Amino acid sequence: MSTHNVFVPPAGTRDQYPTEMAKVRYIQDGWRRAAIRHGFDEVGGPTIEHADVYAHSGAGISGDLFTVKSGQTSPDSAPAFVLRAEFTPTLARMYAARSATLVTPVKWFSEHQCFRAERPQRGRLREFMQWDCDIIGDDSVRADAEVIGVAVDALRSLGLTPEHVKVRISHRGAVESLLRARGVPNDRLTEWFYLLDRAGKISNDDFTTDAVRLGMPASAAVDLLRLMALSTPFEAPTTQVMLSEDASGRGPEYFKALFAELKAGGVGDWCVLNLGIVRGLSYYSGMVFEVHGVSGKERAIAGGGRYDHLIEQLGGPPTPAVGFGMGEAVLGHVLEEHGLYPTDRVIGERLGLRPDVVLIAQSEEIDPVAVGQLVAQLRRAGLHVRRPDVVGSSDAVLANVMPGAMQARFAVTVESSDGLGRASVVNLDTAERHPETLTFAEIAGYIRG
Amino acid sequence: MSTHNVFVPPAGTRDQYPTEMAKVRYIQDGWRRAAIRHGFDEVGGPTIEHADVYAHSGAGISGDLFTVKSGQTSPDSAPAFVLRAEFTPTLARMYAARSATLVTPVKWFSEHQCFRAERPQRGRLREFMQWDCDIIGDDSVRADAEVIGVAVDALRSLGLTPEHVKVRISHRGAVESLLRARGVPNDRLTEWFYLLDRAGKISNDDFTTDAVRLGMPASAAVDLLRLMALSTPFEAPTTQVMLSEDASGRGPEYFKALFAELKAGGVGDWCVLNLGIVRGLSYYSGMVFEVHGVSGKERAIAGGGRYDHLIEQLGGPPTPAVGFGMGEAVLGHVLEEHGLYPTDRVIGERLGLRPDVVLIAQSEEIDPVAVGQLVAQLRRAGLHVRRPDVVGSSDAVLANVMPGAMQARFAVTVESSDGLGRASVVNLDTAERHPETLTFAEIAGYIRG
Repeated sequence: MSTHNVFVPPAGTRDQYPTEMAKVRYIQDGWRRAAIRHGFDEVGGPTIEHADVYAHSGAGISGDLFTVKSGQTSPDSAPAFVLRAEFTPTLARMYAARSATLVTPVKWFSEHQCFRAERPQRGRLREFMQWDCDIIGDDSVRADAEVIGVAVDALRSLGLTPEHVKVRISHRGAVESLLRARGVPNDRLTEWFYLLDRAGKISNDDFTTDAVRLGMPASAAVDLLRLMALSTPFEAPTTQVMLSEDASGRGPEYFKALFAELKAGGVGDWCVLNLGIVRGLSYYSGMVFEVHGVSGKERAIAGGGRYDHLIEQLGGPPTPAVGFGMGEAVLGHVLEEHGLYPTDRVIGERLGLRPDVVLIAQSEEIDPVAVGQLVAQLRRAGLHVRRPDVVGSSDAVLANVMPGAMQARFAVTVESSDGLGRASVVNLDTAERHPETLTFAEIAGYIRG
Repeated sequence: MSTHNVFVPPAGTRDQYPTEMAKVRYIQDGWRRAAIRHGFDEVGGPTIEHADVYAHSGAGISGDLFTVKSGQTSPDSAPAFVLRAEFTPTLARMYAARSATLVTPVKWFSEHQCFRAERPQRGRLREFMQWDCDIIGDDSVRADAEVIGVAVDALRSLGLTPEHVKVRISHRGAVESLLRARGVPNDRLTEWFYLLDRAGKISNDDFTTDAVRLGMPASAAVDLLRLMALSTPFEAPTTQVMLSEDASGRGPEYFKALFAELKAGGVGDWCVLNLGIVRGLSYYSGMVFEVHGVSGKERAIAGGGRYDHLIEQLGGPPTPAVGFGMGEAVLGHVLEEHGLYPTDRVIGERLGLRPDVVLIAQSEEIDPVAVGQLVAQLRRAGLHVRRPDVVGSSDAVLANVMPGAMQARFAVTVESSDGLGRASVVNLDTAERHPETLTFAEIAGYIRG
């Protein structure tokens, strides 16, 4: 046996026991319902993806990819596959493959594991669950607002409010205008986007040093940093001053139209303008956004934007697209932080996990095969039946064997083996708990009401 | 760009567009409901697992593992991780890690991707969805029957019957008795299990040749092959003759008790005894079973059995356990073969995908922002709203834009921008389709009933 403890999951991955698993499913259920309400259709793709697809998408995360080989591959050949680091390149590949027949706009969502070969940190796992929503073939501002709208609707359904989280919206074109106004040439924009994306993670001094190295005077860099830190409502005077820097006028016009759509969609008060958001992935081409907890304690809950060139880069026709990914790990931390997870019992009810019946034999004398027949009969009728490995009166057994979170709706006690096939049924949700004696054949109908 | 077509998913993996994805979710929904009805709790584990966990479990599939490396690992070091090929080793590791506090019997289920680095074949993908159910800490025959029972209940809920599929049950101890009766020594049992597992995949001549090489006379090998091919109900005379070979008497006694439990659980008519089932994985220690379509066209739908030593092999306390895995790919083929998939529309209803509302503006003159407000309002009320990118009368639009499979329950048409906030609502499920004119505020309540 090797030196590491085989009991522990690989660093940055998780074992999910029932209580934790139910919390993940609770988040996924909120995602899924929001996506369906908003008219997105579910798709799925492979967990292992061609390394090429990442190379062509220029995702800018190639250093963080896990590589995958089959035993049959010779050890010195280039890795053919990588573990999915995000869904967008796969989605773009899938759209490109069927672009001739798909009717646009296409609205797709997906829930899937993602993998990053980074050093594990809080909210930054090596394997995590992510939700993606994308609109393909629609270049309108309304599509931009729609993807932000479905993200917010999911967060709202999980109990979050604009007091807890904010959507910080930016636009690569507007950020380019800010940079050009400060003398940055076109061929340095990529380096600048990389630096701006790191601005929140490095010190202001390190930022200024790097900016000077890229040819910007220190005073201009400090001023730029101040602008990028502004996270203000669209109507705020500072926002308007900032936008007035965009001499083309296209930035102000875009944001005006976007915020009008967001307001119509009922999510205006969740959204702020923050030109410090540029997103690390190189394929973004227009609007970009991130969702952050207002406490600032956690990493981004979600991030996305417009990627109008990616499908073409992967060999498809020129196709506008916009979407986002939302990770479950950071969102879970934010729900914990604000005490927004319901109780285990409420989560269990939401997910349909609450038992309908706890079924007990009153004594050791009762034929366990007859009890098993009743259990099977109730389950075939669609009821969720738990049969604890104990005997006794239902009151005593219930007090000991069924934790409150998994309290059943009814207790069924087989009281004798007289061959009559009768049991005592108690509705545990009523205060008086009056038992009814019913034949086996009657019980399912009684419980289903 | 490399020579392969970047549009195609990696060989043996699948892109799942909405119709295919809904079919996978339909199967998963059947699995999940069956597991819950039978009192199993959901767990999850990492997709990447310690290579050690597979080495210690002696799973017997190490040649088919995908290995995973992070970019940070030096290229010549041993691969630290593998992609999950099955869930049992992870489950055993998870149980071992918490064995001190978990209250047995533990009943866990999981739904997850599995990976095999094999040459892709029909029903044998490199990535597939699998459902596992396991009972840990219970060495009883009832636990054996219970895992078979939940597997059958899921298949029954998907429309299968004993006319379509059979559970073939065996026991490693009974097979050992058959082999010992033919002079096979203990230290050759592993080689023999490997050969028996391949018996269905190689010719009878090849089997006999290998058997002779292992020291058995050809005539005995032919006789053994004939016994292993028998797949008969427990009560059948041939079954009784076969079991009488077990001089210890333990085989007949075990199967008698097991089939009594299966019958009590209402699944007796799905089950046959077939000593040809030995399972390839080396950790099985007692009862083993596989579920096969009676047409024999497909690979096994499910396979499992008792593994009473695996948790101890992974460093935990001695703990009996029994369980199975069921793959979605073969099951999907069997449902197709028998025409058992419901229509896309019925699957959509089952999964909660049917739109509540299709919302249309009658003409180009109607303010799209006002329409957007109504859409957002209905979605916030929990309704699934589709807003096709067309205008016109609902009859004309419905005929063109909503495929029958996704037909909405109600059509809402905004007929004017008179500022009154009214729309026409039609229940599409009634024959007369009489429109009601309602205010925006009334619509959600009317539709929810």
